[in-house]
Amino acid sequence: MTRTAVLLAAGSTRVAEIEGITAAGADPSVRAHTPAADAEILTYGGVAGAPVVPVSPSGTPTPAVLSRGALEALWASRGAENGESSDGGERAGTYVATPTVLDAGLPEPTTAPTVSLDAAPGDDPRDDLAVPDAAAIRDRATTLAESLPVDRLVIGETIPGGTTTAKAVLAALGERAAVSSSLPENPTGLKRRVVADALDVRGLSRGAAADDPERAVAAVGDPVLAAVWGLVRGAVAGDTRVVLGGGTQLAAAAALARHDGITADLELATTSFIAADDSAAIRELAADLDLALRVTDPGFDARPDHPATSGYLAGEAKEGVCAGGTLALASEAGVGTDRLRQSILGVYDRVVE
Amino acid sequence: MTRTAVLLAAGSTRVAEIEGITAAGADPSVRAHTPAADAEILTYGGVAGAPVVPVSPSGTPTPAVLSRGALEALWASRGAENGESSDGGERAGTYVATPTVLDAGLPEPTTAPTVSLDAAPGDDPRDDLAVPDAAAIRDRATTLAESLPVDRLVIGETIPGGTTTAKAVLAALGERAAVSSSLPENPTGLKRRVVADALDVRGLSRGAAADDPERAVAAVGDPVLAAVWGLVRGAVAGDTRVVLGGGTQLAAAAALARHDGITADLELATTSFIAADDSAAIRELAADLDLALRVTDPGFDARPDHPATSGYLAGEAKEGVCAGGTLALASEAGVGTDRLRQSILGVYDRVVE
Repeated sequence: MTRTAVLLAAGSTRVAEIEGITAAGADPSVRAHTPAADAEILTYGGVAGAPVVPVSPSGTPTPAVLSRGALEALWASRGAENGESSDGGERAGTYVATPTVLDAGLPEPTTAPTVSLDAAPGDDPRDDLAVPDAAAIRDRATTLAESLPVDRLVIGETIPGGTTTAKAVLAALGERAAVSSSLPENPTGLKRRVVADALDVRGLSRGAAADDPERAVAAVGDPVLAAVWGLVRGAVAGDTRVVLGGGTQLAAAAALARHDGITADLELATTSFIAADDSAAIRELAADLDLALRVTDPGFDARPDHPATSGYLAGEAKEGVCAGGTLALASEAGVGTDRLRQSILGVYDRVVE
Repeated sequence: MTRTAVLLAAGSTRVAEIEGITAAGADPSVRAHTPAADAEILTYGGVAGAPVVPVSPSGTPTPAVLSRGALEALWASRGAENGESSDGGERAGTYVATPTVLDAGLPEPTTAPTVSLDAAPGDDPRDDLAVPDAAAIRDRATTLAESLPVDRLVIGETIPGGTTTAKAVLAALGERAAVSSSLPENPTGLKRRVVADALDVRGLSRGAAADDPERAVAAVGDPVLAAVWGLVRGAVAGDTRVVLGGGTQLAAAAALARHDGITADLELATTSFIAADDSAAIRELAADLDLALRVTDPGFDARPDHPATSGYLAGEAKEGVCAGGTLALASEAGVGTDRLRQSILGVYDRVVE
């Protein structure tokens, strides 16, 4: 049996406070609660203490709804659609537990249980070193990943503003500085300016930190990237398989690992919405970084008029909270698209309505 | 579908440092890590950071092995043995997530994700007020329980020395001061002396706190009892069903709730090992407190020679870490005794060997 743990690195960066840079949370006062609410939805199947359900200004729900829907469909299917495995009656090939949330700099408390990485919210790299204790956060995550009794880690993130810090890290490492967005019209010009200013203020030219990933993430990254890098380090050290569930942010964490000399197989599991986003350039990014890319489509086009689906089909939200990773797990377990979508819509009804 | 959350209140009391009072952890240096290790076994299916696997001096494993075994059997059975429900194709009657661990005064860190109740380890009531901030701990637990989107809470504990503080609280409330033990020869004389001294030092005669449960738990209780009381308060306020998974400690928490004026139905789900322990007087205690008692037998007598079972059959360990609660969940889901025992032995092999 393959024991799979889903880990969600939840944190924050002050970059999210830049007007117009993220749709993760309808307005700034709400945005700070987004990672807490995402953690609760993933853990409990509903917001449980956080004062808001994260939806975009147009009403598109957080990708946590997709992730929880995928997990619930997976759990319901176990032993049935998985069927019997070939090893003499043992049921099901994969065991996937409730996700474990890592507090990698949550700005507001959550009622979801968390493993603390003693991380503070990340700073805006235009003002301050983004993550002064990036190495310590990374190392705590490594210790955790080394100790988990599992065969495979599926790692996701929730950090508003995180696509911009990911872009900055990719640039500092000299990688393709792709950038996705939770907004249908990606404010790429704004992000490019923020990244350019951040690199400039921190004294980094493009590729200047190619041999020093610690410097890249400390200078212009965020605590979630440091945490995911550390998880990858720990997993690889223990021969645990790694699936990075997400888009450009998880790719940036993979880039940190690659520039750290990690050559192990790494998989990037993302949504079809990221794959359809040219600015994310996810296929190219995955190829650059030697990541096996898996794209999963939750089949929203069969119900395009639903508030849980229409925003995604229009290019909003796209990915996050391990959506691509959990969709891949459900797909791997034989959950069909119709059932998957039904489960996601069920979570939406329960969580948002 | 019934959504059930298993909550584990994990904490400590300096009462556990009294020589000879507990078998939870083979020696004092190890004992402080017992709740952390229990939390990890329940969450991950194995110790994941804690430096020890809790076993008694004779090698009997922590009841966390029973609880995790019951949950794994339950998860494997879902959709299969539960069969189809009557509501038109929805699978399975009950959804049980990975347990949520509450840090109610952990003395050592754990890698299991936790919800912090901002609780310190409890003091020895012969020296100091046991839990000065009991009311605040209780209230934080209440807020959590109120916010969880579930239909039923199954609540357990891990706190070495907790049977003695439970006995003290029962005495302070004027209830039957029953006491179970993790030791085959319950040191009832020692516990009686500790409780008598504690009540004396704290100025409480038997029953003196019958109208003031807050005083009882603050004076002679422990932070786990305060937390469980708070969970019951919150669950009852939200019409969430409550199952107390344990023995005399959970009964003491129920006593706090009853003396707090809570008249809602409460169930006490315990192991057959507690039911067979005359000193625990669990049937009488349940009757006194108007608790519906459910006793589950994991069927160890069919494999009496195994290191995972023989200690329990000889009266060691008996209960803890929500063993009775999780065994009841597995039984309710139709998991047969043979399968349950196999699952527990499988966890033992993985965790202890």
